[in-house]
Amino acid sequence: MLPGVGVFGTGSTARVLVPLLKAEGFEVHALWGRSEEEARCLAKELGIPFHTSRSDDVLLHQDVDLVCIYIPPSMTRQIAVKALGIGKNVLCEKAATAVDSFKMVTAARYYPQLLSIMGNTLRFLPAFVAMRQMLVERYVGEMQVCDVRVYGPSLLDQSYGWTCEELMGGGGLHTVGSAIIDLLSFLTGARANRVHGLLRTFVQQNGLIRGIRRVTSDDFCFFQMLMGGAGSSSGGVCCTVTLNFNMPGSFVHEVMVVGSTGRLVARGTELYGQRNGSKGEELLLGDSGWAGPEVKEMPLPHLQGLSSMVKSLRQSFQAHAERRSWAREPVAMAPTFEDGLYVQTVVEAVKRSSCSGEWECVEIMSQEPDPNHNLCEALQRNKN
Amino acid sequence: MLPGVGVFGTGSTARVLVPLLKAEGFEVHALWGRSEEEARCLAKELGIPFHTSRSDDVLLHQDVDLVCIYIPPSMTRQIAVKALGIGKNVLCEKAATAVDSFKMVTAARYYPQLLSIMGNTLRFLPAFVAMRQMLVERYVGEMQVCDVRVYGPSLLDQSYGWTCEELMGGGGLHTVGSAIIDLLSFLTGARANRVHGLLRTFVQQNGLIRGIRRVTSDDFCFFQMLMGGAGSSSGGVCCTVTLNFNMPGSFVHEVMVVGSTGRLVARGTELYGQRNGSKGEELLLGDSGWAGPEVKEMPLPHLQGLSSMVKSLRQSFQAHAERRSWAREPVAMAPTFEDGLYVQTVVEAVKRSSCSGEWECVEIMSQEPDPNHNLCEALQRNKN
Repeated sequence: MLPGVGVFGTGSTARVLVPLLKAEGFEVHALWGRSEEEARCLAKELGIPFHTSRSDDVLLHQDVDLVCIYIPPSMTRQIAVKALGIGKNVLCEKAATAVDSFKMVTAARYYPQLLSIMGNTLRFLPAFVAMRQMLVERYVGEMQVCDVRVYGPSLLDQSYGWTCEELMGGGGLHTVGSAIIDLLSFLTGARANRVHGLLRTFVQQNGLIRGIRRVTSDDFCFFQMLMGGAGSSSGGVCCTVTLNFNMPGSFVHEVMVVGSTGRLVARGTELYGQRNGSKGEELLLGDSGWAGPEVKEMPLPHLQGLSSMVKSLRQSFQAHAERRSWAREPVAMAPTFEDGLYVQTVVEAVKRSSCSGEWECVEIMSQEPDPNHNLCEALQRNKN
Repeated sequence: MLPGVGVFGTGSTARVLVPLLKAEGFEVHALWGRSEEEARCLAKELGIPFHTSRSDDVLLHQDVDLVCIYIPPSMTRQIAVKALGIGKNVLCEKAATAVDSFKMVTAARYYPQLLSIMGNTLRFLPAFVAMRQMLVERYVGEMQVCDVRVYGPSLLDQSYGWTCEELMGGGGLHTVGSAIIDLLSFLTGARANRVHGLLRTFVQQNGLIRGIRRVTSDDFCFFQMLMGGAGSSSGGVCCTVTLNFNMPGSFVHEVMVVGSTGRLVARGTELYGQRNGSKGEELLLGDSGWAGPEVKEMPLPHLQGLSSMVKSLRQSFQAHAERRSWAREPVAMAPTFEDGLYVQTVVEAVKRSSCSGEWECVEIMSQEPDPNHNLCEALQRNKN
């Protein structure tokens, strides 16, 4: 039996997600918005019976068994951790910091019977599912290089907000780079050991953001990851990622994996391959034809991935008679909160590298930093 | 009146160059090869009256006024410097080291009346000539990012040789990267201040190179250059270059410049552009249709560039009645030996960066390093 759903957020993803959930048979019972007005408008538009601007009203709603959190990164941790504590299943977007991600991991570990997955939908896109399968089957032989390019128009909201602020989780690296970092670990089966990056904010002001306000989040980002553990003789796969969001009117989403005997490349939602020695590229998976809504802010790979993920969620829940129970297998490839922590750790390492100019190690947090650490040190100093 | 030409080298470039020279009316009088046999074969094939394996025979040949040097990088400096000393005009490929390049610069400065240009032909390709003109006319507004990708099959020769050896000037960075570094300084009108790079040799042995022999030259290279001097508010243009020569059966040559109001991209020999706000890309310069020979080892942009360069050389020389005199204007955009030194300096900085993992400064040599430097230090130490 499918669980009742509560949705946090009134942005473009929430707007797309609700119809997808309904199409799969989920009932969406409650919607939370930052203001009563925003919540009321979207609830009316999407036909959701209950709306609120108080988070507890959704979390404690008796018909809500699955909470979907699509809100600004800085608010995500609080809602996600609380939802798990109340005993609700959670699907959520990334948090703003590694510390927040770590707290979410701790909560997820504490409630292993609850579903807790990150909303990175690229893993579910059929092209990437097929790509991973072919990599496992050694279509490219020994993996050498992954090369990713995402070009598109500005990610900034119409008005000044978190998307403009690096510290609030805005910027190409955090927003889009996160999804790519997660995808690359999914495809290669390895994690980054060391990263190097360069971030730039080329457009610091525009027609809407001006005066004393400046954009601090990156609109150009370029990073390299040296993946560990794959046991390759040349020391693992090199990943290079170029993100450029100063390209209005274009959308390029290309993920290429080059290996010793061939290569695979996903362009948008299609997968192509070429083995060394063959004359040309072969189309391995064509576009299935997207019948759903077109969303300006949401590129097709993310949109179709989201749709596939909702289908998997349905399969996961409908396997059980109890509303809150779910089967692991259909969502086994979904990113966990641990994956979320890894991604966030890489994002922060790339940012550090952009400041230091050096390669930075990716060290996953294993215990929460003591918030009183500085205080303790100060006390210690005073004593001596 | 056109000068008589002597050609050094029997490789693919020399093989293409001679017919192009002849087509423009140059007479090729002499050919040098590393072995008498190689020289004899190619001279016969191309109809060159004189061949030799002794360099002086070409340099001192009385009908030779222009020397074209297309030989392994480690031998280039010696021939180029000697040719200038004998009073011949020189067109040559890159040297193996910055010290060699510096010696060539010194010789070129000493004989300013002689033509001395580097054989980087991309500057002459019509697509890049047009691209540069449009960048000057601010088609893209303020330049932000240059993104270059060159993918192709292995650069290694059939047998073990200098192309396999990093120290001999082999590898993607030195061979192809050099041309790109030169091109980017031509397009942006700026030079790299700092670089960061990563080199890999994924294929260390193959069917022909095996046993105790290993390839040390890179087949994958990835570097970034921060350009100085352009006076941009965000601190100059960022260039990112990806070279991958583990992609048999493909050839991708893409140079993109993204700016504040639009972008330009050269794919192969064609130029496309898109201004922000317009619906799609426009074709700015189509392929003119290459009627010349197809050369497997030489991608079309280089081949067509070489052809354009030979045309410019003809214009430069035919402006004057005297065989050795030439006009500056038709070859004004050709890379000088100083440009060659800059390129070599960047190449070495990228290699240093790949070892150190850090950003490396590009510092152009201003005086020849003292070959007895270490000796002097040792003597100094002994004295104290």
